[in-house]
Amino acid sequence: MGIVTLTTDFGLTDGYAGIMHGVIRGICPDVAVVDLSHQVAPQDVRGAAYLLYAAYPYFPADTVHCVVVDPGVGTSRRAIAVKTSQGYFVAPDNGVLSYVLAREPVSAAVSLTNSRYHLSQVSRTFHGRDIFAPVAAYLARGAPLTDLGEAAIQLVMFPAPGISVRAGGALGGQVIHVDRFGNLVTSVGQLLWTDDNLTVRPVLPIAGDEGSGRWLSPFPATEARVYVSGRRIEGIRPTYGDAPEGELLALVGSVGHLEIAVAGGSAAQSLGVGVGVEVTLEIKGR
Amino acid sequence: MGIVTLTTDFGLTDGYAGIMHGVIRGICPDVAVVDLSHQVAPQDVRGAAYLLYAAYPYFPADTVHCVVVDPGVGTSRRAIAVKTSQGYFVAPDNGVLSYVLAREPVSAAVSLTNSRYHLSQVSRTFHGRDIFAPVAAYLARGAPLTDLGEAAIQLVMFPAPGISVRAGGALGGQVIHVDRFGNLVTSVGQLLWTDDNLTVRPVLPIAGDEGSGRWLSPFPATEARVYVSGRRIEGIRPTYGDAPEGELLALVGSVGHLEIAVAGGSAAQSLGVGVGVEVTLEIKGR
Amino acid sequence: MGIVTLTTDFGLTDGYAGIMHGVIRGICPDVAVVDLSHQVAPQDVRGAAYLLYAAYPYFPADTVHCVVVDPGVGTSRRAIAVKTSQGYFVAPDNGVLSYVLAREPVSAAVSLTNSRYHLSQVSRTFHGRDIFAPVAAYLARGAPLTDLGEAAIQLVMFPAPGISVRAGGALGGQVIHVDRFGNLVTSVGQLLWTDDNLTVRPVLPIAGDEGSGRWLSPFPATEARVYVSGRRIEGIRPTYGDAPEGELLALVGSVGHLEIAVAGGSAAQSLGVGVGVEVTLEIKGR
Repeated sequence: MGIVTLTTDFGLTDGYAGIMHGVIRGICPDVAVVDLSHQVAPQDVRGAAYLLYAAYPYFPADTVHCVVVDPGVGTSRRAIAVKTSQGYFVAPDNGVLSYVLAREPVSAAVSLTNSRYHLSQVSRTFHGRDIFAPVAAYLARGAPLTDLGEAAIQLVMFPAPGISVRAGGALGGQVIHVDRFGNLVTSVGQLLWTDDNLTVRPVLPIAGDEGSGRWLSPFPATEARVYVSGRRIEGIRPTYGDAPEGELLALVGSVGHLEIAVAGGSAAQSLGVGVGVEVTLEIKGR
Repeated sequence: MGIVTLTTDFGLTDGYAGIMHGVIRGICPDVAVVDLSHQVAPQDVRGAAYLLYAAYPYFPADTVHCVVVDPGVGTSRRAIAVKTSQGYFVAPDNGVLSYVLAREPVSAAVSLTNSRYHLSQVSRTFHGRDIFAPVAAYLARGAPLTDLGEAAIQLVMFPAPGISVRAGGALGGQVIHVDRFGNLVTSVGQLLWTDDNLTVRPVLPIAGDEGSGRWLSPFPATEARVYVSGRRIEGIRPTYGDAPEGELLALVGSVGHLEIAVAGGSAAQSLGVGVGVEVTLEIKGR
Repeated sequence: MGIVTLTTDFGLTDGYAGIMHGVIRGICPDVAVVDLSHQVAPQDVRGAAYLLYAAYPYFPADTVHCVVVDPGVGTSRRAIAVKTSQGYFVAPDNGVLSYVLAREPVSAAVSLTNSRYHLSQVSRTFHGRDIFAPVAAYLARGAPLTDLGEAAIQLVMFPAPGISVRAGGALGGQVIHVDRFGNLVTSVGQLLWTDDNLTVRPVLPIAGDEGSGRWLSPFPATEARVYVSGRRIEGIRPTYGDAPEGELLALVGSVGHLEIAVAGGSAAQSLGVGVGVEVTLEIKGR
């Protein structure tokens, strides 16, 4: 009994997500279908990429993750399935797997050209139902990836912002996601707590820090300084509630990345910034 | 292991849908419960009828579809269960099955009067929990339809708009649904693509075309002309993205029906029209 | 095959609820996970308490109900698991179980201190994923409650308003919930219909009525009078539709409690009242 997860921008009003459940169960009756989100902002490929990145580590390694945020449906964009050691990913080839594949090496990838694994009639506007859902179901049922189509190379990827050591020794990153509360999630991760100290366990190698490992040793959270949009924030707090209402604070979000928040407010609004903005982390005396 | 689908106007805030899951699993623990939608507009029986019509073909033929959009709860309206070759349908007898039953012949229908299949206490305001959910669960568990109550005849049906041949030979239909993007779904279906040609495979017989079959032969999509609300649209496009932003276009929607859309906008708003408006399809030179 | 229900204020946009499904299935693959609601108003502990109270009676008695409305996440508030004869409840110790535990005696309660039943890394901001979901899954898989941590006493409870006999003999209660339509749900329950008569089957003993049982005998619904916010309502109606549009009415809601509604409108808005407001029920001639 496997799992198929669904991540789409279909909303929950029109029944599209439910139809995908029906198609999947028709092919693989015992599977568990888990809705990650059907409320991705319409055609927000980067938003879906982040959501998937935050979620997949919490699913069994044989889970099939099916993503349908697909501005190019009906055009010549490829549909792909990718195998990693942490699960299968079925999606349009539009970069939506960029964050996951920055962390997980690809074992194999195919273009979904074998119509034996699609519905018998494929519409031009709803590949979620006609291609992605059946392919995910067949994978969950044990179909070999290589049967789904020919090998796919040069997958579309947008640059996954990592972290780098800046001149002067500070750690630099970028805002990669703004959540619905206006919190700014940055590319600076993973940050792990041990009591009141933090350690950086980088998802990607830290550019400029090769071999030195300077950033891998623990530092007191109170000694951290975060710079964003001309503002300086002292210390990294344990939780949102640790700062007075309205104050700008830095913390470690639930995905393990450095986050900028405003207690009881929206950091994105207060600072007037969004995805792509530079963030700097320095440790006093390091 | 069967499937019960749920379609309601309960929303997702108050836990009513979750309670139905609980009742169903208490009676039939191994069933899969699939939420088609709980966001039908309050008391929008026609909206629910369309949603169900778009979804049921994608579920196994022994699925139990349970619909609770029920403005008449607590009044003398009947509660019914209907068997077709494409699934069971459990619903108030208020027309919500009209579109499905225009396509699927009724094998048997009963009025849900046998209280053995209801919860032991039936409230006057929440029959979804007390009657429809348990009946759906017992059907999924294998209860014979005829045990649920006496045979029901003359089910409430609203006229399901079909298609007809108009004077001059054009095909006429109506808008039957406006989706949340403002796209106008018409009764002209099914339209099937073969490369760049289209074929009409009518859901209902085409009134005025008996025997001639004139409308069943393929035609080039570019030769189609669609008239709606005094506007003429040239050609039927493969997808929403095939017209410039803001332009009115005709296409085949995911349910296989002719749709009127505005690229990146709302056709319903642009044209100021809704359900019931007449639509005409003609082929140049036919 | 057991059931875990989820009640949170996470919303459905960010994938947090789906992540909990993943964690639970990773631990207990065969469980059914039912979403009661993820749309509790942010940090509305009382709202979640009511929702749970309305729902749990409709689930099998071995269900694990997991509630994460947790304004105190990351502070020293306890996390608890409680066993009753009607299911397990896993939640922060912030009063969210108050309404359930006013009706269901506690068999055992523990503080969730045994980290063997948590994820290996526990964040400071997402205990739903890291503590509550895994504990619920282990309980569903059969882990003994007493293994989860030491016994917990003096659980946080807010006063669960009941009913009492007032001077003059009328029955008094309070508004305990305002639903999304503005209907006022009161603490006066359970009210059971038998034809056109009502009976009070109190959830809690009726203060001031010990032994007399005066309020337990049936009364005609038309003889009831309800007083709220200086207004008098004659009779208890079977359903919302039984009063003319705009009129204030009293009825028995789906949870079996006395409710105040405005036909086609919002009683909370019309009367300008909310949770905590006093309600009085009297029977003419009693």
